[in-house]
Formats: sequence, C-alpha cells, structure tokens
Amino acid sequence: MSDVPDHAELESYLHGKIPLARAMGVKVGAGEPGTLVLTAPLEPNHNHLGTAFGGSLSAIATLAAYSLLWVELGDRTGHIVVHRSEIVYHHPVRGDIRAICRRPADAALAEFRRSYSEAGKARIRLRATIEHGGRVCVEFAGDFVALRSRE
Amino acid sequence: MSDVPDHAELESYLHGKIPLARAMGVKVGAGEPGTLVLTAPLEPNHNHLGTAFGGSLSAIATLAAYSLLWVELGDRTGHIVVHRSEIVYHHPVRGDIRAICRRPADAALAEFRRSYSEAGKARIRLRATIEHGGRVCVEFAGDFVALRSRE
Repeated sequence: MSDVPDHAELESYLHGKIPLARAMGVKVGAGEPGTLVLTAPLEPNHNHLGTAFGGSLSAIATLAAYSLLWVELGDRTGHIVVHRSEIVYHHPVRGDIRAICRRPADAALAEFRRSYSEAGKARIRLRATIEHGGRVCVEFAGDFVALRSRE
Repeated sequence: MSDVPDHAELESYLHGKIPLARAMGVKVGAGEPGTLVLTAPLEPNHNHLGTAFGGSLSAIATLAAYSLLWVELGDRTGHIVVHRSEIVYHHPVRGDIRAICRRPADAALAEFRRSYSEAGKARIRLRATIEHGGRVCVEFAGDFVALRSRE
C-alpha cells in the first residue's frame, strides 16, 4: 500500500469517478506501512462552527476504507460498495482532515480474498480514524462488500 | 416545519455555512407535515457505479437531521453538532437523492427543549431515510447535541 504508482492511480480514480471527492479536495497522503491515508483541506469541508463538517468526515472515512480495499483487492473489474457504517465524533477537527484506514488482520484479508475468488462476493469490516493535533477525533467502522464482475 | 420562510432561511444558511452542502446541490424540499426533506441531484453526488455515493448519502442524511433540529430548536444563537451516527445502505440510489427526517415524538422533543432551556445542553436521537423509486434505500440514525451559547 505504500506503492506510489498505486497512489497516483487511486487519486486519479477517486477524482474521476466520485465528483464529491474532487469537491472535497481529497488527496492520497503518506502514512505508515499497512495504512491508507486520505487528506482534505478544511476550507471546502468546514461547517457552521468553522470546524470540519460531520458529513465531510463521514465521507472521507468511507473513502479511506473503500480505497484501502480497492488497493488490497487489486481487481479493477470488481465493484466495492459500503453496506453499513457507524461513526463517532469524539472531538471537533479544527484543521485539515487526515483519515487513516488500517489494514485488517492477515486472516481477515485472506478470508476476504478466498470468498471473493471462490464465490465472487466477499464482505469485510474496516476501521478508520480521523486524527488531528495528535488525538483521535473520529472513529469509523464499516462493512464493505466486493462483487466480482460477471463479464 | 412546513413554514416557507424557514425553508428559504435554512437553505441559505446551509449553503452559506457549509460549503459541501452547496457543492452537493442540497435544497430544502417539500414534504409531509412533520418531516424535513432535503434533496440533491445525482450528478455531483454519484460514485464509480453511477449511483449515489455513500459519502453523499451519509452527508445529506446528517444534514436533514441537523436541519430538522435547527428548525425545531429555533434558537439561532445555539449550536447543534452530531455526536454519533449509524447508516445502513439497503439499496443503491439510482437517481436524485431525497432525504427525509421525521419529527421525533412530542415527549422526546419536549424533554430535549426542557434540557436545553434548563441545562443549556440537550441530546436527541434523530432518524432519517433516503427513499427512491418508492422504497427506503438508506436508513440513518444519529445522536445530536444542542449547546446554548454562553454569551
């Protein structure tokens, strides 16, 4: 996931396919190995209080998890969708947004890949956080489903 | 909540204070009494599959619930924030988005108002749905907190 061409391809994919990602100014950021990081400036994403809008935080967390799965799955012909998610806003985000999705455990990813390969459909739970000023401001968890193309 | 000046004021407030609402093309729609409806066109909110992006759906559901509380609270000096939420995407939304937040039970609203008035802080759970083609595609529930201005 620290592969630079993958990141450029991912950013171009997100901007090309999801207009809101472009409107939000989402970029693929640098992160620790085993993480996928998306960033966005505060300006297009602020709320009535001048802090980050909950809808932007939810959207970028969803995108970070989606993106990690997109990179992990590798199959550009398949489809990934979010089925359900929960989000807790612990603290306001008072600056630029940084959403971090951590790679799930190897066993969970192996089971996900096996199911995708054998049944053409797989489900996995992904977690993401949004951190600012050295603390976790937002926790997100979602169930994502990948569907293999029938073509 | 069917008050037209309130709706015009709300739409102007959302567009003025929350840039993403403007980028999404959010409008206040007409709805049954006791509901607050927000709409948004599909075009700026689509995903890689040409259906509505989960992040847009989550954002507009959050905004619909926020807006209902904004109208109900009436106090333009107070602050409303979302504390946590859950969302389930049952079916893809294949056209324009229509998010509907229903007014909570009278007893819950009365308790919310009492707490806001007496303690300067109140919490309430709100539910919203996104419907398309006659069926509920998305269910959203969130806990919102209102804080009275200290000034």
